[in-house]
Amino acid sequence: MDELKLRILTDGKNLGDGILKVDGFVNHQVDPVLMEACGRELASRFARVGATKVLTAEISGIAPALTTSMHLGVPVVYARKHKPITMPDQIFLTLTPSHTKGRMVELMVSPEFLSSEEKVLIIDDFLATGQTIMGLVRLAEAAGATVVGIGALIEKRFEGGRDMLSDLGVQIESLAVISDMSNGKIVFAD
Amino acid sequence: MDELKLRILTDGKNLGDGILKVDGFVNHQVDPVLMEACGRELASRFARVGATKVLTAEISGIAPALTTSMHLGVPVVYARKHKPITMPDQIFLTLTPSHTKGRMVELMVSPEFLSSEEKVLIIDDFLATGQTIMGLVRLAEAAGATVVGIGALIEKRFEGGRDMLSDLGVQIESLAVISDMSNGKIVFAD
Repeated sequence: MDELKLRILTDGKNLGDGILKVDGFVNHQVDPVLMEACGRELASRFARVGATKVLTAEISGIAPALTTSMHLGVPVVYARKHKPITMPDQIFLTLTPSHTKGRMVELMVSPEFLSSEEKVLIIDDFLATGQTIMGLVRLAEAAGATVVGIGALIEKRFEGGRDMLSDLGVQIESLAVISDMSNGKIVFAD
Repeated sequence: MDELKLRILTDGKNLGDGILKVDGFVNHQVDPVLMEACGRELASRFARVGATKVLTAEISGIAPALTTSMHLGVPVVYARKHKPITMPDQIFLTLTPSHTKGRMVELMVSPEFLSSEEKVLIIDDFLATGQTIMGLVRLAEAAGATVVGIGALIEKRFEGGRDMLSDLGVQIESLAVISDMSNGKIVFAD
């Protein structure tokens, strides 16, 4: 998606070690016009998978998942990392490694909002190692739901997440695929 | 806003102690159609305050703030509770009491995205004691920015937040104002 790629080149920063700073338009500050366009594009690419629910992880997945769900017209669920007092005691919980925090984090979804009938489209801001998305896949599977697609705004292909997720046999879409961030570069795959 | 009030009566749950569970359409699971309508309504009520930026706090403020910012056509910034590695060392930080966590939480904004020229519209899911919103006000003031309005989806008027915030002399809007939650009731103010 040219609009997003151009913005990454203009306002994104390669901080080294594979860290792409997109705080000015994706997380911390969000450009709502761009985010709405990204949601429209993701919804369009997944128009035929029959999703009944969008699933993401707090925090930075919320914006792209919400705009995607707006265009698909289905609810969005964001997995929580800390259990709020309003969540029931019996929940779906999985652990995923957080590469920014250097430890495992919990991802929790209430059974109230994920059932075995659901066809789940997973949306996140980044597809990098794929660990967070794989955690969301496990949550969907724990509920007996079917994962029908995986979408991300930005993919760091050199971190291998797509390869791991391809075993699932579902459609995977990223709006901007970065193939190389060595030596301060930001190189797109296409 | 009738659409939101009806949904609170239908799907909200009064858990006692002033806790309103709206996990099925506001947080955890979000109804994108309702959230988009709420954002449109908030944007309409603040159409004349000249906001250049929407400010909220992660996590559950993100959805209403994003849809409001979409309709105003200005960026949205969500204050972080944990410092990501992409955030600079010199930041605006304040502490607010979290009544669900029973302790103080940090709210942080990068000076990159909040400057003294900004006219800030603060949006959150709840206006209850007003402590989180007051924390956002302090962050805006630390940046030298001007707060031009405060909006929430749901106000628990009996927790007194509006009274505290009224000293600021800015427009305050809530889409559903609850005046009484005693004995399992959910009573709207109007």
